[in-house]
Amino acid sequence: MAEPSRTAGPAVLGVDSGGSGLRLAVAPVAAPRVRPEFRYASDTPVRTGGRGIDAHHLLGQLLPAAEKLRQEAGVPGFAAVCVGAAGMTTLGQELRDVLPQALADAFGVRALALAADAVTGYAGALGQRPGAVVAAGTGLIALGADPGSGAGWRRTDGWGHLLGDCGGGAWIGRAGLEAALRAHDGRPGASPALLRAAEERFGPIGGLPGQLYPRSDRPAVLASFAPCVAREAAADPVAAGIVRRAAEHIADTAAAACPPGPDRTVVLTGGLFRLGEVLRAPVRAKVAARLPDAVCAEPEGDPLDGALRLAAALATDTVRLPVDGALLQLVRHGR
Amino acid sequence: MAEPSRTAGPAVLGVDSGGSGLRLAVAPVAAPRVRPEFRYASDTPVRTGGRGIDAHHLLGQLLPAAEKLRQEAGVPGFAAVCVGAAGMTTLGQELRDVLPQALADAFGVRALALAADAVTGYAGALGQRPGAVVAAGTGLIALGADPGSGAGWRRTDGWGHLLGDCGGGAWIGRAGLEAALRAHDGRPGASPALLRAAEERFGPIGGLPGQLYPRSDRPAVLASFAPCVAREAAADPVAAGIVRRAAEHIADTAAAACPPGPDRTVVLTGGLFRLGEVLRAPVRAKVAARLPDAVCAEPEGDPLDGALRLAAALATDTVRLPVDGALLQLVRHGR
Repeated sequence: MAEPSRTAGPAVLGVDSGGSGLRLAVAPVAAPRVRPEFRYASDTPVRTGGRGIDAHHLLGQLLPAAEKLRQEAGVPGFAAVCVGAAGMTTLGQELRDVLPQALADAFGVRALALAADAVTGYAGALGQRPGAVVAAGTGLIALGADPGSGAGWRRTDGWGHLLGDCGGGAWIGRAGLEAALRAHDGRPGASPALLRAAEERFGPIGGLPGQLYPRSDRPAVLASFAPCVAREAAADPVAAGIVRRAAEHIADTAAAACPPGPDRTVVLTGGLFRLGEVLRAPVRAKVAARLPDAVCAEPEGDPLDGALRLAAALATDTVRLPVDGALLQLVRHGR
Repeated sequence: MAEPSRTAGPAVLGVDSGGSGLRLAVAPVAAPRVRPEFRYASDTPVRTGGRGIDAHHLLGQLLPAAEKLRQEAGVPGFAAVCVGAAGMTTLGQELRDVLPQALADAFGVRALALAADAVTGYAGALGQRPGAVVAAGTGLIALGADPGSGAGWRRTDGWGHLLGDCGGGAWIGRAGLEAALRAHDGRPGASPALLRAAEERFGPIGGLPGQLYPRSDRPAVLASFAPCVAREAAADPVAAGIVRRAAEHIADTAAAACPPGPDRTVVLTGGLFRLGEVLRAPVRAKVAARLPDAVCAEPEGDPLDGALRLAAALATDTVRLPVDGALLQLVRHGR
């Protein structure tokens, strides 16, 4: 494997911008994966304003950090760049307007990929192979693709905590709190164990609505109870039922996202799966039942790896993931 | 039946304050029910501020309207008053501080009942008989009582759209929109009929999250889809399943609220039941299955009737509904 150096040939820049901050990495086109020595991370998220994701705030962090990485890697510029960002589809107009020229001026970049974070997540987990990637945290979304087939992205769920995100962290926590309140009221579907757990976490249960509804981060508050539900599932049948239904929803969403055909891979990513085998095992079993021809696998890399892979594919003109101008858009300098 | 007149004996004042405005009625103690000729209604809701329900805003409407009704009824004052208000339990402190003296000064009132709207709803529907009253609109709550037993109110559900209100308008509408989005995604539990209905109502379904999440009245937006779910239930099995599960939840909540014992009556009130027999019939059937000794009945009157009944019971010292200082508080002048 070639190290990025003056003699390693062209290099690419990958960018991952999300709610927890901005991350950058530089790698050779021939070996597009994140190495700690050519990686930069800031915990200052790029601002979102009235014009969407603030391109100038992004560039203020990106340009000096990328220049430092370029010098350390000993490359003259970048053959291509991929920027993956949360909200790219709906909030990325200013990035589309500003980034191509700015990156051309700074690094001689002639090709830029602008991707939703779900797309860099897919590319990091699966590269350009066919299958589906579930991204589960507070919310839940799955993205599927059959690269090279001409078919577009298969985006499934991700509708938010009131309309969907079925099986995600807020969904599990909400169901657990409902079961706790059913125990308080004496209604069916009650879990005295979850009532105890909820009062340990939130205080007397009668005060829970007053704690939850005034907050703007209600989904996160709900999701904060998901680990309690997973823990109680070992001994409490109602909690176990909630985790089982969450696993069914996750498998349903993965199956709907996965394109038909042989040799598909399904990958589970995101913080929700840190709940452990109590959730992962039934999801794998249900995915196997719904998609007998697919394999469940661990992700090969993270979204920053995905950005490097997409940039390298762009540099070598080998992008096969669906380019739809929304989830994934390719921009050549001058156009 | 005595008409309220100079010769009819003492009269009482009932007040019902809620989100849709303020209503007042005057009636004889001996016949406490609303008559159109002794009734006042304003569509200006009483303000809620930093100190809770604004007692002075309430009195600014109440005192002149009650004085007019008093004159029309030809009575010298009111033997007792009952004020039922949405939010009384948590937001009623200023009413408790200000109303007793103000009503004593204006009308010689020596006894005042301050009640949650659910309590005046109960008294209007059932009087002081034992049973449970379900109040269902955007949300859902049931209140049960066994008057004279010494037991308190049995408050069930009413936890809001994220934690409960199971079977209410927001619950039904939310479930319907989830089924619509499942059809869009190709996930199980899908209803193409509800997808069509949702797009008729909200436009292209991909724009629904952007329409819903920024609003502060999300539960009302969700509930606005409940009539569509009820309509589709005639032909669509997924919509029918949602209405069936709503009916189960409503019956569960009524059964948990209803006190044990013979001769209990369960009453369904609130705008949700305007959906019609598609919801009412399965609720009645399921209540009958869960509570074989109880009778499902129509409400005898509305919350304003309930306020008059409570005021008359207070005037004659025959209040038997649970007085707990929260859902129902009695105040004698001077204390």
